[in-house]
Formats: sequence, C-alpha cells, structure tokens
Amino acid sequence: VEEKTSSGLSAIGSTGIDPETVRGNIENFIGTAQVPLGVAGPLLVNGDHARGIFYIPMATTEGALVRSYERGMAAISHSGGAQALVLEDENQTAPTFFFPTVREAREFALWLPEQQELLREECSASTRHGVLTSCRCHQVGRNVIANFGFGTGDAQGMNMIVRATDRLCRRACQEFGSGEFLLFSGMCSEKRASAFLMTRGKGKRATAGALLPNKVLRMVLHTTAEKLMQVWHSTVIGHLQAGAIGYNAHVANGLTAIFIATGQDVANVVNSSVAITSFDPCSEGLYVSVTLPALSIATVGGGTGLATQNEALAMLGCCGSGKATKLAEIITASVLAGEISMAAAIASHEFVAAHETYGRNRPKEAQDPPTK
Amino acid sequence: VEEKTSSGLSAIGSTGIDPETVRGNIENFIGTAQVPLGVAGPLLVNGDHARGIFYIPMATTEGALVRSYERGMAAISHSGGAQALVLEDENQTAPTFFFPTVREAREFALWLPEQQELLREECSASTRHGVLTSCRCHQVGRNVIANFGFGTGDAQGMNMIVRATDRLCRRACQEFGSGEFLLFSGMCSEKRASAFLMTRGKGKRATAGALLPNKVLRMVLHTTAEKLMQVWHSTVIGHLQAGAIGYNAHVANGLTAIFIATGQDVANVVNSSVAITSFDPCSEGLYVSVTLPALSIATVGGGTGLATQNEALAMLGCCGSGKATKLAEIITASVLAGEISMAAAIASHEFVAAHETYGRNRPKEAQDPPTK
Amino acid sequence: VEEKTSSGLSAIGSTGIDPETVRGNIENFIGTAQVPLGVAGPLLVNGDHARGIFYIPMATTEGALVRSYERGMAAISHSGGAQALVLEDENQTAPTFFFPTVREAREFALWLPEQQELLREECSASTRHGVLTSCRCHQVGRNVIANFGFGTGDAQGMNMIVRATDRLCRRACQEFGSGEFLLFSGMCSEKRASAFLMTRGKGKRATAGALLPNKVLRMVLHTTAEKLMQVWHSTVIGHLQAGAIGYNAHVANGLTAIFIATGQDVANVVNSSVAITSFDPCSEGLYVSVTLPALSIATVGGGTGLATQNEALAMLGCCGSGKATKLAEIITASVLAGEISMAAAIASHEFVAAHETYGRNRPKEAQDPPTK
Amino acid sequence: VEEKTSSGLSAIGSTGIDPETVRGNIENFIGTAQVPLGVAGPLLVNGDHARGIFYIPMATTEGALVRSYERGMAAISHSGGAQALVLEDENQTAPTFFFPTVREAREFALWLPEQQELLREECSASTRHGVLTSCRCHQVGRNVIANFGFGTGDAQGMNMIVRATDRLCRRACQEFGSGEFLLFSGMCSEKRASAFLMTRGKGKRATAGALLPNKVLRMVLHTTAEKLMQVWHSTVIGHLQAGAIGYNAHVANGLTAIFIATGQDVANVVNSSVAITSFDPCSEGLYVSVTLPALSIATVGGGTGLATQNEALAMLGCCGSGKATKLAEIITASVLAGEISMAAAIASHEFVAAHETYGRNRPKEAQDPPTK
Repeated sequence: VEEKTSSGLSAIGSTGIDPETVRGNIENFIGTAQVPLGVAGPLLVNGDHARGIFYIPMATTEGALVRSYERGMAAISHSGGAQALVLEDENQTAPTFFFPTVREAREFALWLPEQQELLREECSASTRHGVLTSCRCHQVGRNVIANFGFGTGDAQGMNMIVRATDRLCRRACQEFGSGEFLLFSGMCSEKRASAFLMTRGKGKRATAGALLPNKVLRMVLHTTAEKLMQVWHSTVIGHLQAGAIGYNAHVANGLTAIFIATGQDVANVVNSSVAITSFDPCSEGLYVSVTLPALSIATVGGGTGLATQNEALAMLGCCGSGKATKLAEIITASVLAGEISMAAAIASHEFVAAHETYGRNRPKEAQDPPTK
Repeated sequence: VEEKTSSGLSAIGSTGIDPETVRGNIENFIGTAQVPLGVAGPLLVNGDHARGIFYIPMATTEGALVRSYERGMAAISHSGGAQALVLEDENQTAPTFFFPTVREAREFALWLPEQQELLREECSASTRHGVLTSCRCHQVGRNVIANFGFGTGDAQGMNMIVRATDRLCRRACQEFGSGEFLLFSGMCSEKRASAFLMTRGKGKRATAGALLPNKVLRMVLHTTAEKLMQVWHSTVIGHLQAGAIGYNAHVANGLTAIFIATGQDVANVVNSSVAITSFDPCSEGLYVSVTLPALSIATVGGGTGLATQNEALAMLGCCGSGKATKLAEIITASVLAGEISMAAAIASHEFVAAHETYGRNRPKEAQDPPTK
Repeated sequence: VEEKTSSGLSAIGSTGIDPETVRGNIENFIGTAQVPLGVAGPLLVNGDHARGIFYIPMATTEGALVRSYERGMAAISHSGGAQALVLEDENQTAPTFFFPTVREAREFALWLPEQQELLREECSASTRHGVLTSCRCHQVGRNVIANFGFGTGDAQGMNMIVRATDRLCRRACQEFGSGEFLLFSGMCSEKRASAFLMTRGKGKRATAGALLPNKVLRMVLHTTAEKLMQVWHSTVIGHLQAGAIGYNAHVANGLTAIFIATGQDVANVVNSSVAITSFDPCSEGLYVSVTLPALSIATVGGGTGLATQNEALAMLGCCGSGKATKLAEIITASVLAGEISMAAAIASHEFVAAHETYGRNRPKEAQDPPTK
Repeated sequence: VEEKTSSGLSAIGSTGIDPETVRGNIENFIGTAQVPLGVAGPLLVNGDHARGIFYIPMATTEGALVRSYERGMAAISHSGGAQALVLEDENQTAPTFFFPTVREAREFALWLPEQQELLREECSASTRHGVLTSCRCHQVGRNVIANFGFGTGDAQGMNMIVRATDRLCRRACQEFGSGEFLLFSGMCSEKRASAFLMTRGKGKRATAGALLPNKVLRMVLHTTAEKLMQVWHSTVIGHLQAGAIGYNAHVANGLTAIFIATGQDVANVVNSSVAITSFDPCSEGLYVSVTLPALSIATVGGGTGLATQNEALAMLGCCGSGKATKLAEIITASVLAGEISMAAAIASHEFVAAHETYGRNRPKEAQDPPTK
C-alpha cells in the first residue's frame, strides 16, 4: 500500500496487533489507528448491576471533552450518584415481504405473528445466543414489514439476528405458501436516526437520573437551577425548530469516546445518540435525567476482545459475558454527566473559556484551535 | 489508574505517542485505543480536486465492512468512476437571544441581519481562519435564534466559530442596546440528526454520482437495475414508516471507519450521516448517487496531526491546508460505494453469505459471530 | 353579534338548524357556515364492508378538486375497483405520570401494564361504548407516559376515552400508592402530525390498493407507468428533503372535503392525513396504494347527526351504528383516487391546464384565480 | 344523485347559493354542507393591522371548543391583549429539474438563482398578483429542486404561483439549453406537515405573545405559572417521544374552525398547524406565545367570497384586498387563546369537567358523547 499511495505508513504499521487476531474484524489489514485515550472520573453509579465508583475510558481528539465530562461526573458524585437502569433490552430487524395485493398482504400480516413458536424454533436452529422475542407486522400497501425482536445476550448481535432473520423469512414464505422478501427495509434504524427508535428502541433502552442539590449546582457547576432550566427550555425550542430527533446536548460526544475506547461498533453511535435529556425543577435543586432508547453495546464479540479495548472494559469491570447491562448503566450515567456539564457551561457563559484552557497547545495552531 | 481500577493497562499504555503532542486533544491522557485499520480500493474519483485512483483507509472492527465497500468501489471504478462534488461549504452556529416581547424580538430579528459588516469585523478580531458568511434570524415567540454561517477553511472549525459567535453575540447585544443570549440553541444540529441539516447543511454539502452499466451490475454486483430499484423502493418505504431523517443504506459505517482512520471528530458522524441515497433507472443501467448535506471534516487541526491519522491522510494526498475539499470528494465517493454494495447484497440475497465468509474466525466465537 | 361587529349576518343566520339540536356541538351559536358540496364518482370499492359503486360527497371551495378526484375514481373503477381494508382499529390516549426518581418511575412502568383487568373494569364504569384494549408504558427519565388503547365502536371517541383515561389515571395512582398525573402528554398525536402515528396509529389504520392496467393509465390518465414512477421517485425525494412525515400527494384535500361533508371532526385531518402512498411497477401496469395509519372518523356522534351531514352519510349508506368501518374503506379508496389523479396530472404536465379549466369563472377574479 | 344513491338530499339541496357563483370553487355541485357557527370573544389584539376588540367566528361540531377558546381570549384580554405580528410573508413552490449527472445538475443549480431578473419577467407575464421574490436550489444527486418564493398579495395564491412556476420551469429549461422538470416535488409542503416548514415557512409566518399576570392565571384560568410550566415541560417531552413536528396543544382545532367559517382552503390546516407554542416563566406571571411558520390564509379568492364566509370575514373587518395580514394577526392571537386554555384545563384537571358541561345534550347520545 505504501508503494501504491507513495506514502509512509510506519506509525500505522507499528502495531502490536497480530493480524490473525483481527481476522473477523477487518479485511486488508495494514495496522492500527491510534486514538488518544483519557480517563474521566470518579463517577458514582447506583445501578442494578453497576454499583460504586467508576473511572471512564474515553478515546477522543476533541480537547476539553474529557474534562467537561469529568466535571459533570463530579456534580453527580457530589450529589450521591446517578441511578442508572436498563428498562428494556431487545435488538430488532425489519425485513419486507411482498404480495400481489393489499388483501393478500393483510392475510400474511395477520398470520405471521401467530407463528411465533414455529419462528422461535427456526431461530434457535440458526443461533445459540439469539432468541426471538417478538414479531409485529407493519403493512404499507401490499408490502408487509415484519419487525422481529431478539434477545442477544451480551453481544451487540446484529450479525447473528440478521442471519436468523434470513432463515425466518425463508421459512415464513415457505409455510405461508407465497411471498417474497428482502432482508432489510431500513425500518429497524440500525446506524441511523429515526423517530421509531424513540418508541421501539434498539438494544438497551436505558435511563439515568440524579437530583443535583442547589449547593452542587453552585459550587461544582457555577450556575443555578433556574439558569439551567432556561438553557433546557431554549435549547428544546432550538431542537423543535430544527426538526431534530429527540433532544440532547451532546450525547454523541460521550458515546463516541467510550465506544472507541471499549471496542463497540462506533457507527452505532448514530442510533445510540437518539435521546431525551430532561431537566425538572424541584425545591431541593434540579432533577436531571437522560434516556437512551437505542443503546447498542456489547461486552463480547466485535472489537471488545482486542487488546486495548479489552483493557478499557476491564477498567470498568465489564469484560465478557454477563456484563452488558452493567456497561449500559455506566455509559448512560456517563452520558448524563456530559449533558449536565454542557448545559452548565452554556448557562454560566464558561463554554468558550473552558475550551480556551483545555483545547489549546496544539503544536501547529496555538492561535486558532479549529476543532470543537 | 491501574491501581484505582485494579486492572492492567499495558496495551493502552504502550503507545508511541508523546503526551505533549496531544495536549490540546485530550485530558487525563493514559495511552491510546488501537483500532484495526484496513484499506479498500482502488476507487476512481472524478472530482474537482480529487482526480484519479485512491486507496481508502478504514478503521473498524466490523468484519466484512472493508470488503463490502471495496466491492462497491470496484463497481464504480469499472463504470468509469464517480463524479464527486462539494456543492456548498459553510459551518454554522445558532445562539438564542431573549427579549421581553414578540415585538421587541422582531425588531432585533430585522435589525441583526443588516449588521453583517459590523459582525464580520467582530468575527475577524476573534479568528484568523473563520469568516462570517451569513446571518439569518429565526424568531420563535420572543426568542430569536440567529443562525450564523462561517467559512472555516480546511478546519472542522467548530471551536473557532463558537468562540467567534460568543463575541458576535456580546457585540450584537451591546449595539442593539438590549437582549441577553445563550451560546447554543441546538438548532445548528452539531453532532445530532435533524431535518434542518437537509436544507441548511453543516460543513460540506457534497454529492457523488455514477452511472453503473447493466454489465457492471451483473458482473460485479450479481444483480440487475430492476432488483436494485426494488430494494431502493421498499427501503425508502421502511424509512418513511420509521420516521427516519433522510434515506441511506449504511452511510454511518463508511464515515465512521474513515473518520477514525483520518483523525476526524468521530462524533460528527451523527450529523454527517444525514443523507439521501438515490437510485434512478435509465436505459443503460442505473444512476446512483448519494448526497451528504452536513459532512463535517478537516485536514488541519483536531486529530488530523496525530501520527497514524496523518499517515492515513497522506495515503489520500490530503494532508494539511487546501485539502479539505479533496478529502470531502473522496469520502463521498467512498460512501457511495458502500451504498451500492449494501443494496446489491440485499438484492442478490448475498448479505448473510458475505458476512459468513468475512465476519468469521473470531477467536472465541467461531460459531456465532455477534457483531454486524 | 351584528351590533358588536357592525356587520350583517343574514346569510349565516338564515340556517334551517334548530339551535337546540346543536347544543352539544357548539357554544354561542349564531347560524351556519355553508360550504359548497359536490359529488365525485362513480367509485368501485371492494372492501370487507363497502362493496360496489359509491358517489362521494365532497365539500370544498377549491376549484378542480372534485373533478380531479373523479378522474382518479374513473381510473380505479375501470381497473376493476380498489380493495380497501381496515387493518387495525384502536384509538389511544397518553397521559403522563410523575415520580421522584427514575427507579420509582420504572417500578410503575412495569406495574401498570399488569393491571389491565383492573383498568378495564374502571374503564367500563366510565363509558358504555369505550373498551380498554391495551396499555404500554414509555418511560422518559422519571416521567412515565402511559399509552392506553381503546375500542370506540362507531364513534370518533376522543371525548369518551379522555374521560375514561382520567378515571384510569386516578385509580392507577390510588392503587400504586403514589404518583401524580396530567391527562395529556401530546404523545397520542390527536390532531397533530407525528412519526409515532405511522407505527402506533390512531383510530382506523386503513389501506387501499388497485392494479391500474397500462391501458387505463394511457386512456384515463394520459400517462404511463414509467412516468408515474418518475413522479413517485422524485416526489419521495422532495419529501425526504423536506423532512416530511410519511409521503403523499394531497391526501389532505380529499379527507378535508369528505370530513366537512360527512360531519367528521375536521381538525382530525391533521392526524388522518399522515400517510404513505406507494406506486409499484409491475408488468401489467402499476400497482397503487395508500395507507392511512391514523384515520379518525365516525358514523355516530359529533357532527354526523346534523341534517346535511347525515344526508351525505346516507348517500354512502353509512348512517349510524355499525358503519364506521365501511366509511373508512370508502374514504381510503377515495383518497387513493386523488393520489392517482394528482400524480398523473404532474406526469402528463396537465396540472395547470386542468386548473385553468375548472378553477375559473370566479365572479371577481376571472383573470387570476388565486386559490389552489 | 338522489336516485343513484337512493337517499334524500333535501337539506343539502336547500341552499341559498346560486350554482353560478361557485363555478370556480367546485364541480358537480348539488348544494351545501352546513356547519354550525359560533362566536368566541371578546379578544383584544395589538397587531400592526389588527388593533382592538374582535369577536371570532368559529365553525365546528366539537362541543366545548368555542367555550374553551373564549376562556383563553378572556385571559388574554384581561392581560392587556396579545401582540400579534406577521414576521414574513412568502408562499413557495418546489419543482424538480432532472439532469444526466451530478455535475450538470450542479451547473444548473448554480446558474438558476442568477437568472432572477429573467424569471421575474416571466412570472409577471403569467400573473398580475404573484411576484417572484426568491429562488434557492436544493440539489439531491442529479436532481435539482428549485424552491421559488412568491408574494401573493391577499390571496392564498397557490393556483397562481403554480401556474407561474410552470412557466418559469419551461423558460429555465429553454434558456439553460437542457433539463426536464416536474412541477411538484412535494418539498414545498403544501397541505402536509414537514420540518422544512419550520424554517422555510409557507404564506404568513406569524407569532402572537402575551404576558399573563399571576392574578389572571388564578382568576380566569384557575391555575398557576408553575403548574402551566409543568404542563408545557411534560407535553414537550410527549411530543419529542412521538417524533412530532413542532409543538402545540391543539392549534388545529382553532384553525379549522376559523378556516371553515371564513372560507379558507381548509386542507391548508395541515401545514398551518405546524407550530411552536412556548411558555416562559417570569416574575410577574407567564409569557405565552405561539409561532405559526406556515399560515396559509386569504381575504380574496377561493371561498372567501361566498355568502356566509364573507359575512364571517366582515365580522372581523377583513373582507377583500389589503386585509390578509390583519386576518393573520387575528387568527394567530385566537390560536394563542386556545393554547392557553387547553394547557390550563390540563393543569387544573378541569378538562373532563368542561367537556361534560359543554359537550353534552347531543340528541341521541346523552350518556356518552363520543367526540372530543
């Protein structure tokens, strides 16, 4: 490749990774991209599975990002921690079936959801880890989009459930006696933003909440509940004016940094960052929460087994089987920290100053640091 | 950190990066996340700036991804290449101004756009690289959201234009004689998906198109124009049914892999993956295009100067000043390749088989590869 | 009122309506608005309940509208009629419950759906006609939005189910032992457009489809399947570019005209016009369909019993109990006719000419008829 | 028609309307639909054109609606009236142009906006009242959607500007030397809901605002600023969860009733009800506003000249030329009244009671009034 592109690749090539170990992860492997990794914390989490203090690995090149999340984590931890919960856990696919008329399509749409036992058997013949959990049909004209739900254990699971879906579709057409299908309709919203994700979810539906006392708002965040409510109010209006999906301050920043660090499928940030951040005023201070309906994460498979990624998971006590729910709780609480910190920076007019301090000292651009 | 989290960090710590060089990129630096990097190509691009054959660096842990993009690149290259163009180039911010009544808000909303000369001066006092290019006011009740447009040269530029916006807002309130402001309304849709991005854009608005002859469809993609149109048709309906923003097959996958490889702000994938992919039937075959209204990329600043990232940019001939438009063209053509390949895999029912072949051989999960 | 506004009201006041008969429909009654009513047809419908030829009453002031729908009806009828089906039938409400923390909210969100028997009893104590059919909770932070589904017979039913919902909420808080509620969250999307309506529906989810042979396309619609597909394709892209909800040509026109004529709650056009119109090419011609996920209509209650409205329902054989499904089928087939006709007018470049012919001869504006 | 449908049409046929006078409004005219008309008020408006007390004609069959709006009007009037303003006034169309490649499309997209003088001439040859005011191109792949803006005086204007657009398109293709076009892309969002309408508008962009003192909140609305903010907050979250366009309580209700009464194109309620309602807390009470970016109304043409409709316009002093802006101000202030009243009914838990009182006494359903 060096030859073809007339460029040196010594840094990329100087990887410690054995090409054999990434054979299922990538093709045409030539080395690694190295992304700077920092740690934010401590963060106190009160989840069902994540309980205690955590230090969060974040891989990013955006100056001030780790510091910003860390400040939100301080606010949460000084407030007694964030509750973090996984509300639902189901990945889903959405193939399309084709019929000659709307009437025949309806017949299929009524028939399919009644075959769940049959489909469950077919599914278990395809995958050991994926379990068919639901089937709902959406008829649009003479097309029927079948929305299959799956449990995928601690894996992100898209590969296994797409393979299972392929078998389910073949079997369904065979049993029904007619119909053709295509494996994807796009309705499942894998790696894209859609309103459907708000209600249907994808992977973990998780929420985190914390009550920030007035004292913490003042001492740690240099602002007040009233000012934070003004930020929430006016930015909600900005989102409505933009026709955004959901509402959040910068969920994508935290998710991306943690996803890269811990070996997640980083493109899933697009669906995972669909969110609703809510600030509710109360007499003691401010109740803050973030809800992530479509958090796609894993502690097994994909990039989770690679060397640096596995170490990052180990920092969180989240390596391997049985840890995905815990990881989801930690991530959601971390994201909440970022929402708090960003809103506070806007409210206190400290946003620019913070970036001046931390986003500087880049070798060639001391005067004009161009990235956010 | 090893001590606090009782975990080993030898791989993360074994970085070649000098902590001094990342001081503006990250805080609490402890090492690097290493992401496997592969190369897809050759890809023939006919842009204004990118002209010729390119090999595309992609950092990912999703098996079959590089191969899939490579197949689409083969289809494009065998068809004479993809035209790739940057249509517009303007980053933007959207602070909110507050007034006591709707009437006073209107007065400001009519006044501000007429002060562009004044604002342009103020902007140039804040940044050498950022240039104020437009100002449009959106009044919602007694709030006025000002949408400032900026040229940011070859930088992603969010940092510099937010800093400039802060100054513009202070000056505007001072000159107008009243009003308060908050620096963000969220309307700018940085790192989030919104319908506003479709028409307003953010960063580069880019498009790539290619005419794939029937022979290429058959030989390289194992399908036909008619079958690809059926995929497009039924997946558009899936997107409409889901209430998705725009329409695309898996733009986020390609963008994420290239963004990580080349040192972009990866969280910008969320806005950059807002897209419209279009397939138009024609007598010779199929005209395919993808339009990215909000592509946020850079060739200077941020993570572009890091060692592995800089090498990846060098592979594309896109290091440093004057190269951002070229990079945008290459990325958009690459994304188009992925759209073609994914649709073809669905149309030919080869999607699962391809993932079986390339997404396998993971050490611990030979039977059940769980990631997509 | 004449006195206060210094204006004559002789036409408004010259109504044949006895004020007593509208006591539940309106307050401060002073007369009637008279909307011109035309008839379009014949329309051949093959529904479950609507079978045969229908003449459709349409109240409108938009010239060329009745003629346009009539042309689409001719195309359908010459093609053997439209299948029209009600796929689902459930109205819904969405009150919000409030809790101190996300954990308590989750407890309620898990508890409530298990109380359906209790809630069903409570519901039946509130309304004879409304039947509670489902309950799903959507937790956002520490709020829980409960989405209650109801059967409402042949009534639009919003009044009765809101009343029932109020009782359900009081009972739920009482039984659960805590929680406050507000009766509306807006999530139900009554009289507003939302992506949620696409998948959740509101009232009738109905679809109509017809296969238009090439000969009918040419003779009745002066166009071809290929040209109509180009219209569909490019207007879908226009909708995606606009960030529209769903896709349709002008569903609101037909719905509004029929809703006014038949005494529906006309503001429900906003949710009822959320739609997906699909054109699929096939060897014999074009399969056309329209799917209306949120069609809010009634044959009893509201304005359906008023004199002219009742006559319009009688024209369709849809007066009173047991007729709402039939009415939904007729309306959906009528709407399909409008979609076909509009697309054909665009494809054949006859749109302007048609409006020139029929939208003219207004008394004072012979030169420049300004309404669409 | 009576014969064909075997039904009596005596009420429909007993119209005072001379068929000749509706020749441009409808085809196959057989009579009128009579919609009950009530009056709400007094409403104090402080607009640019509407200044003073107004009584608002509302045609509806939904019990309690007029009373509800009237209560909101009382709250506004006791607070010194609502400011109501038209912020922008431009109708728009969006035809699609087709080109062989993305490069040729770009050439056209850059060329067209520079031809505004030429296009303005062409426009003025087509219509006396419509004036071309802007042209912006949106390129999607090799298609170019041209968004033409027009001033339409006091007419709704869609007919005239579509006719003008047809001429503009023909002329543009001729001058450019290539390209085909279709008259509609759907992007203009006429009679549909889209996020584009939030920023682009359609017809009048209008806003109304009022400061409601705490005393008025308590005396007239039986609630407090705090409770109303809780309603606003939790219903905004409901809208975000639903993926709604904008945010409002029940704008469609008021618009529909006034549109029917005053002869507007009622299907335009779909685009006109795209809105943002905002409640801002302040020390004296609550500042309330509603912003309607796409209000399509007229005081000439269409149904405005019909007998009852013209009387309704006369009640508002809005007959004929030069009155459309005034009408827009009155309508927006009326809609604001409905937003206030609805929110207050939710906050005070009086919603059901109000409907019990006013939505009753329907002849056949005294026990179970089924409409909202």
